[in-house]
Amino acid sequence: MPTLILSRNDVKELLNMFEVIEVVEKAFQEWSQGKGNMPPKAYLVVEKGDFRAMPVSLPGTAGVKWVNVHTNNITRGLPTVMGVWIHSDPETGYPLAVMDATDITAFRTGAAAAIASKYLARQESQTLGVIGAGRQAYTQIQAHAEIFKLNRIKVFDRSEAAAEKLVKSFPDYSPRKCTLEEVAASDIICTVTPSREPLLKKEWIRPGTHINAMGADAAGKEELEPSILKEAIVVVDDIRQASAAGEINVPISRGLFTVNDVYANLGEIITGKKPGRTDPEAITVFDSTGVAIEDAAVAGLVYQKARQAGTYPSFNLVDG
Amino acid sequence: MPTLILSRNDVKELLNMFEVIEVVEKAFQEWSQGKGNMPPKAYLVVEKGDFRAMPVSLPGTAGVKWVNVHTNNITRGLPTVMGVWIHSDPETGYPLAVMDATDITAFRTGAAAAIASKYLARQESQTLGVIGAGRQAYTQIQAHAEIFKLNRIKVFDRSEAAAEKLVKSFPDYSPRKCTLEEVAASDIICTVTPSREPLLKKEWIRPGTHINAMGADAAGKEELEPSILKEAIVVVDDIRQASAAGEINVPISRGLFTVNDVYANLGEIITGKKPGRTDPEAITVFDSTGVAIEDAAVAGLVYQKARQAGTYPSFNLVDG
Repeated sequence: MPTLILSRNDVKELLNMFEVIEVVEKAFQEWSQGKGNMPPKAYLVVEKGDFRAMPVSLPGTAGVKWVNVHTNNITRGLPTVMGVWIHSDPETGYPLAVMDATDITAFRTGAAAAIASKYLARQESQTLGVIGAGRQAYTQIQAHAEIFKLNRIKVFDRSEAAAEKLVKSFPDYSPRKCTLEEVAASDIICTVTPSREPLLKKEWIRPGTHINAMGADAAGKEELEPSILKEAIVVVDDIRQASAAGEINVPISRGLFTVNDVYANLGEIITGKKPGRTDPEAITVFDSTGVAIEDAAVAGLVYQKARQAGTYPSFNLVDG
Repeated sequence: MPTLILSRNDVKELLNMFEVIEVVEKAFQEWSQGKGNMPPKAYLVVEKGDFRAMPVSLPGTAGVKWVNVHTNNITRGLPTVMGVWIHSDPETGYPLAVMDATDITAFRTGAAAAIASKYLARQESQTLGVIGAGRQAYTQIQAHAEIFKLNRIKVFDRSEAAAEKLVKSFPDYSPRKCTLEEVAASDIICTVTPSREPLLKKEWIRPGTHINAMGADAAGKEELEPSILKEAIVVVDDIRQASAAGEINVPISRGLFTVNDVYANLGEIITGKKPGRTDPEAITVFDSTGVAIEDAAVAGLVYQKARQAGTYPSFNLVDG
């Protein structure tokens, strides 16, 4: 069985947010039940940037995401982050597919936030606030639109042009450019910035708000005033990653928050080991760094759909 | 610039042992000079086998080898080990190529042994003994034939058929099937078996012999009687890997050998930090576990040759 080679356009064509949410939720469930395996990422540092190898398995799926971060790429007209996923058969190790992982990453990040919102936001949530209008903002809106009946979307970005572009991309929802404070007055807030100092002030947050803190993914990054975390019910995707690189990393390093202040991880909420929102007045926070089980789940879905379609290019990569 | 996709046959076509030896020797040199970067492998264990992600950089090259070991594959007619290499531009992170890594692994392993022999065996060595006639045996012979004027090749394998097949593959050298003891009476001995107990006896080894111990690559594996190591000048490819998984791992765990008994690593010999063979009567041993810088060097060579040829398939993998 030759190896499928799926380009960025092919993967885009095969991705469907409704299905992505379904498989990502299932992945958290399986992982929480001890059915997956996710060794620590291996970091390779080079002069101009770095690479991460993220190996992972779930029932029926194994693979590795190889992803770079080169912040100067913008001057060359290349994306900062590019990802390739090798999809392997866990039974034999055979490489079933090699595919672009850029949109897989964006979709699974949106899906994880919407899943967290499903369990942690108030069910009647109607307004979505998005802080940061880069690539990840789009899938936050797409994913939340699958789960909630949104009647208002508010957008903030330091760049007028970026905010304008995002707003124009969702004409069905007539999103509005707003100030930070206006965005903060939403039922659900998603922060998707690379900020290294808090953007979201405690005084702006209304009771009952749910916040998806998606931006922080490295030591030193933070988007929320630590006093928000102190009072909120905090759920993480993975406690090891969150405490080292997620929204809670800076408050922990300053002694303002501890690992014991974390209420649960998302898998525990999904599997019902711990209840999600019980108090309509509570402020809830989902701290996401992005975990490889999400990638594996989505890549597995893309692979299945591509095989079923039977029209994508394949290649005798390791045979012969 | 689209991503090259190179199949196993393409890679085979582009590999040339003379050039491989050249770039692998250079890679050890650069690595020894602190110019490369090789973080520890990330292991992913699944029910039926395991995977390793091996990220690595050298000047001008970065990438990851994703390789599996599934010992039951033989019952399915699939190789136990299959490898894929993603070749990335260290300047931008762009995936320049995805290629089969099976023959890259075999070639670089043969090259590393021949380079060790070049510095550690007697220059006038003429007889090569090969213990184990599996896939790795072929490149041991090819690589040594590039460096030495071989006038006799002796082969041993428990499987008559495997030994026969190897012998017939090198008609120019008229190799001969021999007993273990006969093979041991060679100027250079290469052991390429998955043995978990010593095959090569101390009493068989003549003064002045060089041994490439290539088989042991996991805890518990060994091919030489520990008393050989005790008396020999021992050189390793990488002391971290060798002490954990190489020929010296079992003797170390039994207290029969220590890390301090290792004379040098191969890079130190190549760069002249420590002399190679000085005594014609000495027994020398190269303990090789296989390091990712070897893969990176060979993959870089294959990539350059494929781009120059301009006739290999490429693909808009991450663009769009």
